[in-house]
Amino acid sequence: MPERRYTVRFEPDGVSIDVYREAENLLRVAMVAGVHINASCGGAGTCGKCKVRILEGEYRSQHSSKLTQDEWDKGYRLACQTEIVGDLVVEVPVESRYEKDVLGRRPDHVLRAARFQKEYEGIVPEPAVAKFYVELPEPTADNNMSDMGRLGQALKREHELDKVSTDYTVLRDLPAVLREGGWKATATVMRTHRSHRIVRVEPGDTRGRTFALAIDVGTTTIHGALLDVNTGAEVARAADYNAQVSMGEDVITRIIAALKPGGLEALQKRAVKTINGVLKELLAKAEAEAGDISHAVFAGNTTMTQLLLGVNPKYIREAPYVPAANFFPPFRLADLGIRVPPHVMGYVMPCVASYVGGDITAGVLATGMHTDPRLTLFMDVGTNGEIVIGNQDWMVSASASAGPAFEGGGVKFGMRATYGAIEQVRINPENLEPMILTIGQVPPKGICGSAMIDCLAEFVETGIITQNGKFNRELASRTDRIREGENGWEYVLCWKDQTQLDQDITIIEPDIDNLIRTKGSIYSACSVLLKSVGLHFSDIERIIIAGGFGQFIDVEKAMAIGLLPETDPERVAYGGNTSLAGCEMAALHRDRIDEAEQIATMITNIELSASNMYMEEYVAALFLPHTRMEEFPREAERIRLAQQIRAQ
Amino acid sequence: MPERRYTVRFEPDGVSIDVYREAENLLRVAMVAGVHINASCGGAGTCGKCKVRILEGEYRSQHSSKLTQDEWDKGYRLACQTEIVGDLVVEVPVESRYEKDVLGRRPDHVLRAARFQKEYEGIVPEPAVAKFYVELPEPTADNNMSDMGRLGQALKREHELDKVSTDYTVLRDLPAVLREGGWKATATVMRTHRSHRIVRVEPGDTRGRTFALAIDVGTTTIHGALLDVNTGAEVARAADYNAQVSMGEDVITRIIAALKPGGLEALQKRAVKTINGVLKELLAKAEAEAGDISHAVFAGNTTMTQLLLGVNPKYIREAPYVPAANFFPPFRLADLGIRVPPHVMGYVMPCVASYVGGDITAGVLATGMHTDPRLTLFMDVGTNGEIVIGNQDWMVSASASAGPAFEGGGVKFGMRATYGAIEQVRINPENLEPMILTIGQVPPKGICGSAMIDCLAEFVETGIITQNGKFNRELASRTDRIREGENGWEYVLCWKDQTQLDQDITIIEPDIDNLIRTKGSIYSACSVLLKSVGLHFSDIERIIIAGGFGQFIDVEKAMAIGLLPETDPERVAYGGNTSLAGCEMAALHRDRIDEAEQIATMITNIELSASNMYMEEYVAALFLPHTRMEEFPREAERIRLAQQIRAQ
Repeated sequence: MPERRYTVRFEPDGVSIDVYREAENLLRVAMVAGVHINASCGGAGTCGKCKVRILEGEYRSQHSSKLTQDEWDKGYRLACQTEIVGDLVVEVPVESRYEKDVLGRRPDHVLRAARFQKEYEGIVPEPAVAKFYVELPEPTADNNMSDMGRLGQALKREHELDKVSTDYTVLRDLPAVLREGGWKATATVMRTHRSHRIVRVEPGDTRGRTFALAIDVGTTTIHGALLDVNTGAEVARAADYNAQVSMGEDVITRIIAALKPGGLEALQKRAVKTINGVLKELLAKAEAEAGDISHAVFAGNTTMTQLLLGVNPKYIREAPYVPAANFFPPFRLADLGIRVPPHVMGYVMPCVASYVGGDITAGVLATGMHTDPRLTLFMDVGTNGEIVIGNQDWMVSASASAGPAFEGGGVKFGMRATYGAIEQVRINPENLEPMILTIGQVPPKGICGSAMIDCLAEFVETGIITQNGKFNRELASRTDRIREGENGWEYVLCWKDQTQLDQDITIIEPDIDNLIRTKGSIYSACSVLLKSVGLHFSDIERIIIAGGFGQFIDVEKAMAIGLLPETDPERVAYGGNTSLAGCEMAALHRDRIDEAEQIATMITNIELSASNMYMEEYVAALFLPHTRMEEFPREAERIRLAQQIRAQ
Repeated sequence: MPERRYTVRFEPDGVSIDVYREAENLLRVAMVAGVHINASCGGAGTCGKCKVRILEGEYRSQHSSKLTQDEWDKGYRLACQTEIVGDLVVEVPVESRYEKDVLGRRPDHVLRAARFQKEYEGIVPEPAVAKFYVELPEPTADNNMSDMGRLGQALKREHELDKVSTDYTVLRDLPAVLREGGWKATATVMRTHRSHRIVRVEPGDTRGRTFALAIDVGTTTIHGALLDVNTGAEVARAADYNAQVSMGEDVITRIIAALKPGGLEALQKRAVKTINGVLKELLAKAEAEAGDISHAVFAGNTTMTQLLLGVNPKYIREAPYVPAANFFPPFRLADLGIRVPPHVMGYVMPCVASYVGGDITAGVLATGMHTDPRLTLFMDVGTNGEIVIGNQDWMVSASASAGPAFEGGGVKFGMRATYGAIEQVRINPENLEPMILTIGQVPPKGICGSAMIDCLAEFVETGIITQNGKFNRELASRTDRIREGENGWEYVLCWKDQTQLDQDITIIEPDIDNLIRTKGSIYSACSVLLKSVGLHFSDIERIIIAGGFGQFIDVEKAMAIGLLPETDPERVAYGGNTSLAGCEMAALHRDRIDEAEQIATMITNIELSASNMYMEEYVAALFLPHTRMEEFPREAERIRLAQQIRAQ
């Protein structure tokens, strides 16, 4: 845990919260503390609604035309324009606050990235491709064995590497390289259980600068990391949108695009183009050269993996959903057009099935659930939702064709979690006014996944929508935010003049339907997986949420809408980009490559599309939080209380 | 042994010879029988000197202006224009014949190609790269494993192939290929002890047409053979001059050419160009497609091997003569520009040392001497002379920098063994007139290696030269063929008007010096090798002569000049192109590839350039046949008799 820096107390509720970062934003802290402050512009400082009065403590705050000199002198500030640099006591004005406790208070629980691979920490890197330095005896008339023979002998003698082979691209320069280095050389060796293959020989001792590349090839985003294999440290990280996006948002449209003439090649080139951009940024950040890279590890879902390698993905899409392969041989990065020297070999994380790919295998590896006795639910929510349930003894997986709702697809103002996306929403149950925060605290231009979860949870708890996702039209008389627009009934999250758009940002009923279908498909997939092994949600000892999506969600809210099973939030951890983390581990430790293969072999995939049980479960999950309310006692109580209050 | 067809008896000597080929040339048969018939034009029918009278039997003969009608009617014919089609009795005219017996007759012994690999005959081919046909269960919802997994399972179940891997180039088309063939497919699998690698998958059953390629990359000539791996039969053979020749005649000049900018690439391209030409011819002859080829095996000397693979050969030439490698990994032919599909992998015969290459390893493999208890001397005479001595328990090798004299280099009228080359020479000891035969029986344009050996032997036995290779000027008074020309003393082998040139074809003293140095370096290399293991020439149980050169030499004459040790000619066998034969064996049987590696490992190479003993032996061998005349008792006796006769 990071160290506490400051404490902020909000009055008159007396709610206190610890702040861990210097210069944290006051509105954001209020959001985390569960203190409602009206905020309409996402924290951009333009609506002037988030006025608070700072009673005590040190802070920095921007002047604002929204505040009079008199207000300023009395200590009023815009919360969104205020940075916390000391312990504070803050008074929330009456127009913002409400009697929250009556609502059966739901603690906010923002996930923190967890590190699961404790057991691997402190272990000296032992990468599959490693450099070995040798000093060779100079050839003489009595000892004029071949250069390669001499090198092989030294590798055996000094590093116990036997069965050493190479390819002719290495042999081509070997004579010159050995002599250039005065018979001192560094061999980059690819190690398997069965053999050792020299992929490169450099003059002199080049061990000092050796990096491994980890690349997570996501459908939407390609993430990369550069690792110093001498220390095991991550020296740079970079990401960019997968340039394939312009040829289709999800794997299905990409597969369709791949079937057109030249489509597969075009998709491959776009992925490679993005990888080259990410690589360039990584090298610049680390001040490294492409020639310093010894090897790479890639992970992607099955479609991304096949597209990267140029393997026809056609049958991934057609029943019975057969991938070309689950295990992919190492490949030469340069063969694909990735701008590294020809010696750089890439390992590919093995896939489990057509819709449970190498990113999931890498994710399981990163979480260590395959070596952990606890029953774990691993969930990677992106375009699809992939789920793995199990422990060190067994694992089952499934893919829920969740749809990209949480990534912004099928939602009118949906967008990815980038600048200007509304990422957090609270609604004042009394006046139904929202408190919204955007990424970057700029005026909003859309809504990202975490805010959609917030909206669903807040809507249902404030009665704005019913449990089957329909707007409560009776409330329209109480607020102009609930209205009938051109797409039917909707809630206005942000008025046009506060946005970057020229229209109000709203949530419409079809958005809500989509979100319910998405969360329902994920929950029911978990449910079917558990039933298939004779277990229940209550048996799950921990939940790990992976992927960019998970980073910002409020766990309790995700439980409130029935995306996650209702359990102790402390059991839920955010795994971050576990796909990239798994690649990094495999890049540093060759045993992890073997483990990844074991994981892919160990996981039994269950094809939900073929399951009647899944359809039943899915229909049951199309309710907020679920038709089986007994599985969500806390949320049931909150809804009951809210109804009670409204009825008063 | 082939079946005898006819018998020819030459009168008045009464010498009989069996003829094994239909329509054999009478002059050629006389030559083999050791019957001297004057012949100046190489058998072209232009000099008219080889008149004989046919007393009995069937023959076909061309009319010639050199014969009068009267002569024709009496049965006179030009021997060189006569084909034998029945048993013959032939009278040699007095002007041709001489009392040969007085000279201590040396039986002619033309080598026959021997087959050594009897033990391998009849064995079903078991190539390293083989096709396996499988019928796969169609995927269903219950069995939707990956295409590659399905294929791997079938290969294991039906063919017991485990640890199957592939590369992404195969995966790319795998989904389409399996479905095109209706789940029936043929996998081409590269087998090693440790793993099985699928290099290609084709729809349906393609086992019927599968060929392997064997290529001997010679410094001068590239020979190729195409083998049907289903039957083991050689279905085509082709050869062409190595296009590298224009960049240098021997390995040393090629290495120098490779060091120039772009030189290595240019040399590689030329070898590949020649291979492509040979391949095209092979495919045309066999009516096969490049796509029918499953794999290839290459052999060449160390320099040729490195040039083919584009590996810098610089240090082969510089003391202490270190090759880049002796063992070369399999390579993808298409990577080098050889026009075959990308799946075709090439194996490279391992080398022993810088000047004992894969052609020698292949040669030893072909002769089976590594599995034979008999002490064998294996000799491949080309530009260099490579020698291996040993048996199933041990082998030593050496390379004698013989120089290309026997290939025509450093000999004024020297040429390779092609049309118009004088290939056989006999000299009438009484009048010193020659009997010459050319390849193709066209007018001569030069002298090839076998004729040079003949000349040396005949010259020394007829006293034309002394045992240290100088012309016996006293004989000039007896014949105008011995004369002082612009290059000093010489013997006229063919007068200008009988040649394709506009000058007399002669042998000059520097030619003789060169030939003596060449034969001396080979003999002394054998001698040093034997001494290094404590053995003598008399311990050798068989001699195998390999290479194009060996095909035409007269064994007894090679002994007469001290190129070969004087032993029972029956112990000498001609191996033919043992390098190509070894490649063919390795292409058909994967165990032979292992054996080749064992051979290369087993042979101890002795670097003669570093050996004082070699210099002593070499100097001792610069004599005809040798300064140690006791090692050549038969030739010593012949020389003694000849001197006696001349002294009379």
